Amino acid sequence: MMVSGESVIKDLNAVRSQSPLVHNITNYVVMNTTANALLAVGASPVMAHAVDEVEDMVKIASSLVINIGTLSKSWIDAMIKAGKAAKERDIPVVFDPVGAGATSYRTKTGLQIIKECRPGVIRGNASEIMALVNEKGNTKGVDSIASSESALHAARLLTKDTGAVVVISGPVDYIIDNQSIIQVRNGSPMMGK
Amino acid sequence: MMVSGESVIKDLNAVRSQSPLVHNITNYVVMNTTANALLAVGASPVMAHAVDEVEDMVKIASSLVINIGTLSKSWIDAMIKAGKAAKERDIPVVFDPVGAGATSYRTKTGLQIIKECRPGVIRGNASEIMALVNEKGNTKGVDSIASSESALHAARLLTKDTGAVVVISGPVDYIIDNQSIIQVRNGSPMMGK
Amino acid sequence: MMVSGESVIKDLNAVRSQSPLVHNITNYVVMNTTANALLAVGASPVMAHAVDEVEDMVKIASSLVINIGTLSKSWIDAMIKAGKAAKERDIPVVFDPVGAGATSYRTKTGLQIIKECRPGVIRGNASEIMALVNEKGNTKGVDSIASSESALHAARLLTKDTGAVVVISGPVDYIIDNQSIIQVRNGSPMMGK
Repeated sequence: MMVSGESVIKDLNAVRSQSPLVHNITNYVVMNTTANALLAVGASPVMAHAVDEVEDMVKIASSLVINIGTLSKSWIDAMIKAGKAAKERDIPVVFDPVGAGATSYRTKTGLQIIKECRPGVIRGNASEIMALVNEKGNTKGVDSIASSESALHAARLLTKDTGAVVVISGPVDYIIDNQSIIQVRNGSPMMGK
Repeated sequence: MMVSGESVIKDLNAVRSQSPLVHNITNYVVMNTTANALLAVGASPVMAHAVDEVEDMVKIASSLVINIGTLSKSWIDAMIKAGKAAKERDIPVVFDPVGAGATSYRTKTGLQIIKECRPGVIRGNASEIMALVNEKGNTKGVDSIASSESALHAARLLTKDTGAVVVISGPVDYIIDNQSIIQVRNGSPMMGK
Repeated sequence: MMVSGESVIKDLNAVRSQSPLVHNITNYVVMNTTANALLAVGASPVMAHAVDEVEDMVKIASSLVINIGTLSKSWIDAMIKAGKAAKERDIPVVFDPVGAGATSYRTKTGLQIIKECRPGVIRGNASEIMALVNEKGNTKGVDSIASSESALHAARLLTKDTGAVVVISGPVDYIIDNQSIIQVRNGSPMMGK
């Protein structure tokens, strides 16, 4: 399937004109970069992870991003609370299961978030996507050694099982839903560095 | 009121020569940038948020910065403990009520910090300043849609009520105390991006 | 003692070819920079601090870095749990006692980590190294005012007492073990800024 340049520009212009509030519950490493990237495309980022406020923040947000890169107990509680509130409001949830497969804590948390929050998009590298369907990927911490292609089977299972659009990131990115597979060849082996 | 270039340079030279220790209890997004900015002007930044050590850190600091950008229960406890210790030592407290008005958790926490720590400077965007005096600003997460000018009334009330110097940041910044209003025209609409 | 350029290049090539997983439990300020620096030299960084997963992460890691720059109770628990697991597996532990001497909480935590985790490398500025052997350094928060040279005595005591290689960072860096002292003159007074 081909995605036209015009369609991407139209989407970017829509983001710029609406400046949607994107609620992020993400990891410490990327927080600053994520905020700046969202500002650069014209969105309005907010980072909020207190169990006492995530539901209120979701209420005014246009979408929710959950990333478990530096997870811990109280953050997981907030992610699930926010994810459930997002589903009730029917705003999209994007989930990044960083390190799934590296530790059972991460795999288990990833599965729990998928089950309870029903994300619309699940985005991971090959080994993370494979770990979520109990296929053995080749992982090193948060890096995947497996190729994106080797996770296509797992991605299809995950899409079928959850209804989510699944994105495998790598030298070639794949975007998989129940009907189609899109390849995006913007990556480079240097991206992991 | 005009502030001369000479006076600003004199103040910067004083910071460089004394290299004051600035104790920051701030948010995850800006921590690295804040540390580097303080180093760049010649100050000595320290980030410390454990309830078990903030009082000791305040004892050796020249000022305290409290920013609730990514607040949670244990961080609020530490902010208030540190702020009270700073007041006892009579060192300045600068308070940034990030997202006040966006959630009631943030507004309530902002008011609690002002009441218990009596900051010398309160610095926010228009909608945050308005939220602190119960005026309805137009907020989108941590971004203000209201103009700086629309918060001048709220800023004057806040100054009068708390004795703090109030700073409204935006395309035009305003610095308000009981006697004067200073405009700073260094901003640009791009600053929020 | 001299370290040859060839030897450094050989070590860097080894890192590049093996891409070792480096498990970091470090502070919020440097997390992004540390991850990028490790990627730049060819290592594979992972940041994980949950008490529930640090032992599992250590099991797949080649080394563990502990840095107490923004310490708090639950992080200290995780550091010690991870450090013990690293010792059991006999992988190297590098410890950075940020701010030791600035507050008694930091000094105490530093000593506890050294005692329970037996790091192979302890790396601090002059005042931090002096604080760990109860010599009074001249500290300002996390910055040292003492010269690297003034901490040589403390570093020798610390090496002798713990078996660790001790690194004093400053305008001149010193690497001290039981047999030798290496000077590294790559620093500049601007490094602290």
